[in-house]
Amino acid sequence: MERLLTGDRVTGKLHLGHYVGSLKNRVELQSQVDSLIMLADVQALTTHFEQPDQLAHHLKQVTLDYLSVGIDPNQSTIFVQSMIPEIAELTVYFSMFVTINSLRHNPTIKAEAKENGYEDLYYGFLGYPISQTADITFCKATVVPVGEDQLPHMEQTRKIIRRFNQLYAPIFQEPQAVVGEFPRLIGLDGSSKMSKTKGNTINLDATKEEVHAKIKKATTDPARVRKSDPGHPEVCPIYSYHQAFRKEAVTDIYDGCTNAKLGCVECKQMIAASINHLLEPMRERRNIVLKQPRQIDEILEAGTARARNIGKQTMEEVREAMSMSYFRRDIL
Amino acid sequence: MERLLTGDRVTGKLHLGHYVGSLKNRVELQSQVDSLIMLADVQALTTHFEQPDQLAHHLKQVTLDYLSVGIDPNQSTIFVQSMIPEIAELTVYFSMFVTINSLRHNPTIKAEAKENGYEDLYYGFLGYPISQTADITFCKATVVPVGEDQLPHMEQTRKIIRRFNQLYAPIFQEPQAVVGEFPRLIGLDGSSKMSKTKGNTINLDATKEEVHAKIKKATTDPARVRKSDPGHPEVCPIYSYHQAFRKEAVTDIYDGCTNAKLGCVECKQMIAASINHLLEPMRERRNIVLKQPRQIDEILEAGTARARNIGKQTMEEVREAMSMSYFRRDIL
Ligand code: SF4
Ligand code: SF4
Repeated sequence: MERLLTGDRVTGKLHLGHYVGSLKNRVELQSQVDSLIMLADVQALTTHFEQPDQLAHHLKQVTLDYLSVGIDPNQSTIFVQSMIPEIAELTVYFSMFVTINSLRHNPTIKAEAKENGYEDLYYGFLGYPISQTADITFCKATVVPVGEDQLPHMEQTRKIIRRFNQLYAPIFQEPQAVVGEFPRLIGLDGSSKMSKTKGNTINLDATKEEVHAKIKKATTDPARVRKSDPGHPEVCPIYSYHQAFRKEAVTDIYDGCTNAKLGCVECKQMIAASINHLLEPMRERRNIVLKQPRQIDEILEAGTARARNIGKQTMEEVREAMSMSYFRRDIL
Repeated sequence: MERLLTGDRVTGKLHLGHYVGSLKNRVELQSQVDSLIMLADVQALTTHFEQPDQLAHHLKQVTLDYLSVGIDPNQSTIFVQSMIPEIAELTVYFSMFVTINSLRHNPTIKAEAKENGYEDLYYGFLGYPISQTADITFCKATVVPVGEDQLPHMEQTRKIIRRFNQLYAPIFQEPQAVVGEFPRLIGLDGSSKMSKTKGNTINLDATKEEVHAKIKKATTDPARVRKSDPGHPEVCPIYSYHQAFRKEAVTDIYDGCTNAKLGCVECKQMIAASINHLLEPMRERRNIVLKQPRQIDEILEAGTARARNIGKQTMEEVREAMSMSYFRRDIL
């Protein structure tokens, strides 16, 4: 059976962008593959090391979001990254044979280096492709859904894995990177991506009223002042939401907008209703979980315990491959 | 009670340079401080990642060397670095807030970068001061004996500790660096340091005959061709061995050599005899241990188990300080 590793940095509530970009897919796949979902709290520290105090809260919030969209803890293993020391151990081992050069050529690092100067980067940030490789290898994931922007990372991951296999023993499979259908959802303000820091999101826990209010305020085609002006759906975030959430109606919306027959108010009402239709069962599931909030902890504990067992087994193999299996580890 | 952390990279047998540079001191201190002695196998990988297969053998060899010089496993805790995952975890956490800049200014890195080009350095090598900080903090060492060349490392370690304490909570004490009396022993070939790779060492397991043969072949003052030529002890490795192992006779040797009264053959015989006198009880202890070699494993297992417990306690505190103590860890 394929093993799929996904996850989210634990930096706040999840929103519709996360849903179409990955959560929907995870729910669909969880009965077909062994799904591991990582709450990336350590990775969140690369940018949030000065305020770790929100991590615990966000961890539970994100888990609640997962449960609300239909991730089933009996099918998917939800676990906390910082509680898998094997990830840190693998990071250290891979660090030995990855050169600074190869890390500097990573496009994400390059972009960041351009903005802030290379020397001011943090060491952990420079090593991101290494720790990502550790995330993937500790559980021997075979499939990793990613955004298009992450494909270079995955290429580097595969290189590190090949090098390990060649140096020691071929114990790791090169994972397959799968790019989703809607890797990004346009923001309410028309910017290229929904993002918490821009405040242009609809969160998964939004109420009916919030959805209507947010959609009402959202940007549309700025060239369309009156209903009688023909619109340009391709520049309108509302149209992109129809594409994401109302596939069946996309042709009608396109025609109505470009022929000046459909007004923006009506168009927005339709999408707000659809989004609420999507969110309604999530709200119900969320409320059920919140009646027994202790189960969030229990789910995290059970998922993390399973991931930890996988990690322990992998590290045994790694030590064996590296001739570092000196004596029994269960005594420790 | 002070806690002292020392250790050795696990890359082969120990020699007289190790003895005067640190082992002697460790034996003397072990009854006064809580001594932890780390077998640095992970650190050995920074330069030996392509041949890890000798690690297991070297690990036992070095432990045998320790026991032979009189390190008492009931007083000193001998442990294996790779079996303390907390060291890897701390390395990852410290990595978040240490900049590339501060690592590049480390003199060791600078020297290596000059030789091989900065971009070709390995990521793990660049991060050496971070992992050293993890070694020291996992066990909350208060005293760390170092060579003079390592003082800049220790300054960096103190900086990282200060930053951690300031970011999260003041749980770590800044360790004291103690420079030994004989941080380096000159090589048999007159080069500045005994070093396995140069083949200019006398190993702790050398036989009587080996000691005599090696000393016989050792470099002396090259300007002294005949006994009647006055010698220059300050350029002679043999004289430095008298300083290290026969303090009581140093003045006589100096006078005899500079006044052309003492011949090199006789001078060498005296030091070879002294070294054999030093090594004799080590040979005896070594032979006793080798009668029950299984005890080497037992000592490593017990020491590592104790170090692991210390590491677990420290990580609990670290997680608490970083607000990452989400739920009970003993379930994992
Ligand atoms: S009608 Fe709909 S798609 Fe066209 S501009 Fe208005 S909101 Fe956008
Ligand atoms: S007499 Fe001793 S100290 Fe002087 S040169 Fe000879 S070996 Fe060296």
